[in-house]
Amino acid sequence: MITSVTNGQIKNLIKLQKSGKYRKEQQMFVVEGLRIFKEIPKEWLIKAYVTEEFLQKQEELLKDVPLEVVAPNVLKEAADTKTPQGVIALVKMPNYSITSFLQKENPCFIVLENLQDPGNLGTILRTSEGAGMSGVLMSEDTVDIYNPKVVRSTMGSIFRVPFYIAPMEEIFTFLEENSITSYGAHLNGNNFYQEDYTKPCAFFIGNEGNGLTEETTERVNKKIKIPMHGQVESLNAAIAGTVLMYEAMRQRSIF
Amino acid sequence: MITSVTNGQIKNLIKLQKSGKYRKEQQMFVVEGLRIFKEIPKEWLIKAYVTEEFLQKQEELLKDVPLEVVAPNVLKEAADTKTPQGVIALVKMPNYSITSFLQKENPCFIVLENLQDPGNLGTILRTSEGAGMSGVLMSEDTVDIYNPKVVRSTMGSIFRVPFYIAPMEEIFTFLEENSITSYGAHLNGNNFYQEDYTKPCAFFIGNEGNGLTEETTERVNKKIKIPMHGQVESLNAAIAGTVLMYEAMRQRSIF
Repeated sequence: MITSVTNGQIKNLIKLQKSGKYRKEQQMFVVEGLRIFKEIPKEWLIKAYVTEEFLQKQEELLKDVPLEVVAPNVLKEAADTKTPQGVIALVKMPNYSITSFLQKENPCFIVLENLQDPGNLGTILRTSEGAGMSGVLMSEDTVDIYNPKVVRSTMGSIFRVPFYIAPMEEIFTFLEENSITSYGAHLNGNNFYQEDYTKPCAFFIGNEGNGLTEETTERVNKKIKIPMHGQVESLNAAIAGTVLMYEAMRQRSIF
Repeated sequence: MITSVTNGQIKNLIKLQKSGKYRKEQQMFVVEGLRIFKEIPKEWLIKAYVTEEFLQKQEELLKDVPLEVVAPNVLKEAADTKTPQGVIALVKMPNYSITSFLQKENPCFIVLENLQDPGNLGTILRTSEGAGMSGVLMSEDTVDIYNPKVVRSTMGSIFRVPFYIAPMEEIFTFLEENSITSYGAHLNGNNFYQEDYTKPCAFFIGNEGNGLTEETTERVNKKIKIPMHGQVESLNAAIAGTVLMYEAMRQRSIF
């Protein structure tokens, strides 16, 4: 049983929780809590760190899982939340290739440019699974998808929705070479509801404060605008993404 | 100039920031920051608390506004955020009557039952303004709409979207007496997209963890289900609300 926070494995967990750079170097991230632990694909799980109590209660769940028993106070130190519920898992980052996103016929993507709020990113991932999107593409300056807050707010979708982080140039090349129509929000865009999303398409969502960059706005195939009443100038990024994704899915009637 | 945090007015602001019960007794709440300050309706504003610097920069904005100059460190103590940007305002609570919601023809409402996350409530208010809803109705156990976090995340919509807090019984009576069809999310409900929302309607959104209560689920006119792909069991409450509100607005084509 690990009983000290100076233990090398615990120090590693703490560093992975805090540093995006370290996560990237190690190609690992950390998840915590029973609910999300259950959703980790077997191939992704490196090791579970559990309390004695958790081990006894969840014997079935932990069968064949590499694990370490950790003193509750030490586990708490390694956790990002106040209540890790007796389990923290060390997980391998997935490695999706961008071409694998084309396996599904008639794909539909969401593209995030410099999104910064962890809750927004997590919620968009969760919603994109619900709306049946083919994948989430992200600019390199988007908030780290492996940030503990993002991981939590995906509610497990991080394990199921394919995603890809790349320079915008690479994302545009991919979309253009595969004849995927790109749509970007713009104040002078067409009424969003008057467009046809039944063909391959990609919706661009920009930074919370500044929207899409000028360069991106120039390069998308079509500029669109979600109609808004009252004095609302913009919708929250995750909310705007929801309106776009669910309208595409409605038009495709794949429900 | 107020230079002490023990000043009665500052103590009042601090108490209003912290206590929902005190806000209700006093029928006042607090907003902070330049952007939201600009959106306060004149009739709602009781007094502005500003730094000397803010006063000099925003002379035009503060014309005819009752105000107190406050030392920056004292203003910071009275603030809920780290950067109140030199202004905190004391604001009177509005007093909407439920019947005033019927002034708009063919109304559409969102009804919140025991919603608990301040960010969700604020986002729903902001989105409901954008989607042109007639108003937001809330059960009495919903998170306090005057909570500083809620107020901030409405981005000013709190001043423009009519809302009403009441026991669910009163809300149902209102809807039923006015022939407004109520829709509640339910796992065995009809496909949400196959219903007609062009007549007066109300969408019920429940608590983040537990959804709608059994009583409410029993009483709504129609049970609906937002289609979801993958293994997603539910959408975030604000996201679900968005899908409902924007679909109603699309069908009504009032854009």
